[in-house]
Amino acid sequence: MSKIVPVILCGGSGTRLWPRSRVTRPKPFIPLLGRRTLFEAALDRCNDPQQFAAPVIVVGEGHLAFARPQAAGVTQGARFIVEPFGRNTAPAIALAAHALDPDDVMLACPSDQHVADMGAFRRAAADAATLAGDDWLVAFGIEATAPETGYGYIRRGERLGTGFRVEGFTEKPDRATAQAFLAQGGYAWNGGIFAFRAGYYLSELARYRPELAAQVATAHRQREGDGMTWCPQREAFAAIAAESVDYAVMENATRVAMVDAAMGWSDIGNWDALASRRETDAGGNIIVGPGEVVDGRGTMIDSDGPNVAVVGLDNVVVVVDGNDVLVVSRDAAQAVGRVTRCKNQ
Amino acid sequence: MSKIVPVILCGGSGTRLWPRSRVTRPKPFIPLLGRRTLFEAALDRCNDPQQFAAPVIVVGEGHLAFARPQAAGVTQGARFIVEPFGRNTAPAIALAAHALDPDDVMLACPSDQHVADMGAFRRAAADAATLAGDDWLVAFGIEATAPETGYGYIRRGERLGTGFRVEGFTEKPDRATAQAFLAQGGYAWNGGIFAFRAGYYLSELARYRPELAAQVATAHRQREGDGMTWCPQREAFAAIAAESVDYAVMENATRVAMVDAAMGWSDIGNWDALASRRETDAGGNIIVGPGEVVDGRGTMIDSDGPNVAVVGLDNVVVVVDGNDVLVVSRDAAQAVGRVTRCKNQ
Repeated sequence: MSKIVPVILCGGSGTRLWPRSRVTRPKPFIPLLGRRTLFEAALDRCNDPQQFAAPVIVVGEGHLAFARPQAAGVTQGARFIVEPFGRNTAPAIALAAHALDPDDVMLACPSDQHVADMGAFRRAAADAATLAGDDWLVAFGIEATAPETGYGYIRRGERLGTGFRVEGFTEKPDRATAQAFLAQGGYAWNGGIFAFRAGYYLSELARYRPELAAQVATAHRQREGDGMTWCPQREAFAAIAAESVDYAVMENATRVAMVDAAMGWSDIGNWDALASRRETDAGGNIIVGPGEVVDGRGTMIDSDGPNVAVVGLDNVVVVVDGNDVLVVSRDAAQAVGRVTRCKNQ
Repeated sequence: MSKIVPVILCGGSGTRLWPRSRVTRPKPFIPLLGRRTLFEAALDRCNDPQQFAAPVIVVGEGHLAFARPQAAGVTQGARFIVEPFGRNTAPAIALAAHALDPDDVMLACPSDQHVADMGAFRRAAADAATLAGDDWLVAFGIEATAPETGYGYIRRGERLGTGFRVEGFTEKPDRATAQAFLAQGGYAWNGGIFAFRAGYYLSELARYRPELAAQVATAHRQREGDGMTWCPQREAFAAIAAESVDYAVMENATRVAMVDAAMGWSDIGNWDALASRRETDAGGNIIVGPGEVVDGRGTMIDSDGPNVAVVGLDNVVVVVDGNDVLVVSRDAAQAVGRVTRCKNQ
């Protein structure tokens, strides 16, 4: 079997991890867990020459300066597709598919997730590639461990070789629905990781979103750059309507499959999720940088310099970054995106 | 009637208001409410030449550099007694008494309190001075408005001219006792403000603490400096056992009186008390410096520069001062003194 081509998607600004993540220094490119950035870790996972080809990295033009040196530290021969604007995942994956041989199997991976078990990831990738080679559109199904309302859910159907047929997608259910999914079983989270045969993805995109597919083809045909780094034509790309691969393709197609991926996955979607992935100290807190917790548990301090003391508070996160200080209840971590200042920086 | 001599006592480092208050920049000398420091406001209250003589300021040698210029901005002719070490209030008031004529009435005032109603303060001072002139040891009785466990309580006895006889003191009662005091009525908080005839205070101190009184007399006799600024002799002062005027004198003496002082008093003993004295904005929060509260009420941000965002938390205080950040539940404000770093700075 030929090698899988990793397609690393560097979109999103990660405003809910403000102030550490900023528009000018976004989430994939900062070390949040350990010394590696999430982007570096995403490349690490696909850095096995037995299984994977060199990656294709789709990145916004503002972030190329982060992505290129970090990629060079991990892998040789990475290709870069530089988007002048973000147009969500359906166009991004289509650009990458145009850059490949139609029979290449691509594995589209967000660059801003945490995966604890690299072996499980690679086994799932192999399972997915097998199905993708037979013209299935394959999603990674992440073991659902809590009734999260911020994720998409995939309903598992009948056995299908190395995976399962997908019976349906439910995007961001309410709490009661999510709880029912967990109680019923047979549901997995949609981790946003997909395996496709490049040519089949383009044909399915053309079937369900013909205008979008044609616009991407035009933007690719009129691209600027060389084989290693190129940009879609600016005006043609600007004309494309942003749409996710889930809405544009997965939810419409018939040959949709999933593979089980129990790999310790997290999208590190907010400070609470990040705190959950860090080790606590003997007092039940997490202290990165100079800090102290008095009479508190489940509290995280993450300071880039200033001394932080938290007194008499459980389950809060305090982040100091440059000239900004965030104090947030872990329960309210999703609301960080509503801080005025984090929209501008 | 002769003028009252204000004796302003600058003791205590105010560690519970860390990080704004520090050992090297203590609570009385920083602006906490409005533009005036608490020390300046204490001098303001006694700055009526009809009622008050020039003040005597008792100050630790590390704080003279703060006290002298601030006093010069308010009043002329202030005298300074510079303590080489803190020995609590009984010795401090005795040093001041030695510097006065025995028939002078002195009004000993902490320098780190907030008084909202200056007129009420001056009326209480006049009432207290009348009794002190008749050789009563007179305490200011602050209207007790809550079952505070951190204060001393004074039991009001029979009418005595401009005040009342004191039937007893209870230092820092437990919550149930404090609640019972409020329910019964007849109890006031001990505000730490006292009026004495100087000679009578020294004679009562000699009666109940003869050794302490003799040590202070020695330290005063061997003083260094001039009439406007002097220090008690260092070794002699060092030998004195620290003791409060409450324990050394007030709780032992028989001619003890109080005056009612309903003057909007607060000792600004911690960040919760300080927040309670500041005005809230339309959202029910207090924001000093660049800050924002998302989904919270009763929260105070006080930043000397960095931007602070508080998300999803009620009733917390966030203080940024130089290289230090404090985050504290208002309920736990007393525990700030337990932060390791605040002991060293």
